[in-house]
Amino acid sequence: MDSFKVIEIKKRVFEDNDRQAALLRTEMRKEQTFLLNLMSSPGSGKTTTVLRTIEALKDEMEIGVLEADIDSAVDAAAVAKTGIKVIQLHTGGMCHLNAVMAKQGLLALGTADLDFVILENVGNLVCPAGFDTGAAKNAMILSVPEGDDKPLKYPAMFALVDLLLINKIDALDYFSFDLAAVQQRAKKLNPQLKIIPISAKTGEGIAEWTDWLRSEVTNWNKK
Amino acid sequence: MDSFKVIEIKKRVFEDNDRQAALLRTEMRKEQTFLLNLMSSPGSGKTTTVLRTIEALKDEMEIGVLEADIDSAVDAAAVAKTGIKVIQLHTGGMCHLNAVMAKQGLLALGTADLDFVILENVGNLVCPAGFDTGAAKNAMILSVPEGDDKPLKYPAMFALVDLLLINKIDALDYFSFDLAAVQQRAKKLNPQLKIIPISAKTGEGIAEWTDWLRSEVTNWNKK
Repeated sequence: MDSFKVIEIKKRVFEDNDRQAALLRTEMRKEQTFLLNLMSSPGSGKTTTVLRTIEALKDEMEIGVLEADIDSAVDAAAVAKTGIKVIQLHTGGMCHLNAVMAKQGLLALGTADLDFVILENVGNLVCPAGFDTGAAKNAMILSVPEGDDKPLKYPAMFALVDLLLINKIDALDYFSFDLAAVQQRAKKLNPQLKIIPISAKTGEGIAEWTDWLRSEVTNWNKK
Repeated sequence: MDSFKVIEIKKRVFEDNDRQAALLRTEMRKEQTFLLNLMSSPGSGKTTTVLRTIEALKDEMEIGVLEADIDSAVDAAAVAKTGIKVIQLHTGGMCHLNAVMAKQGLLALGTADLDFVILENVGNLVCPAGFDTGAAKNAMILSVPEGDDKPLKYPAMFALVDLLLINKIDALDYFSFDLAAVQQRAKKLNPQLKIIPISAKTGEGIAEWTDWLRSEVTNWNKK
């Protein structure tokens, strides 16, 4: 018996935006544009991973990026330097994007000529899990310094994504992080989950990630 | 001129719970219990810092802990091992605590005999910034692996806290993190902000942190 009480504070803040998300998905399918929703904690390396991805794929497909943040445009500025189309979305205090916001961003970006759009969601492991953005696929990044207990604390996020990148594996020796345990915890929540350990810093694992993306973009756009 | 557009999606999700928070603060003042609201990203080291704090202060004051998470009780289990009173709060999908939830937790914990309660908020740099919990003081942790750009991206959080702990400074050599730049960025948002670099792992800086706490608890409880 545990020596402390657990109190459940039941209240849902998630509104249903499933209809708009399904509509957006259908439109993106018609336009042959693959939309990837990329989620993580603040500071897990989303933008560095996006930059690596652009570098690896920009010669073979037309890529666009939507950067979402509460404030600042540092991520969009970093992506803009690569020469690809990017829009910075400011959420005005909201901790996630919904399908209506994603659509606003896609309209502003102009997707007719794009094969692949990366939507970098607000840095957060909670709110984005409640809102379908209309993306074709959902991916998340967990970084080694965040700890291997994160699937236990944020199960909804790990349960919904198609792919998990475990980033900053170059720092595995420095932190107490059980890679096998985190994979097991994530798979228990999501048996179909694909997991790829990477280092956006050194480039390790990036080829496996871009292979997955290439295959998903191709399948989506030819349907 | 920037080479990308910025779109403002204006919509506020924050409800006003200021009245309940002010009420709770008055009650805690009468009870001579100092409530600290501790916020950060997932994986910044909140619980390790809480454990260090308990170790340093438990012989000189009565401490209680409220652990808030979406799911799991791993943090409460870790704190319970120290022998102090702890409650695990499950928010049912909500990404922050408000004053009503904090009060529920404090009632369940029983604060009449406590000098100091640490409220470990949900791991999140966005939502908790919008909701006054009724705490006497607010503190946040930013950890080195998260990056020195966080004050630019999450200004509301940095602007509202009384104290910023910069954790995992033992890893400064490993990550590209400009300690002076992050201090300058945080101070620009919040000129009165007290900043203490720490390593919850090695114990560096913990004495300065517990000195601050000791002084705040004493001042609050004698008023």
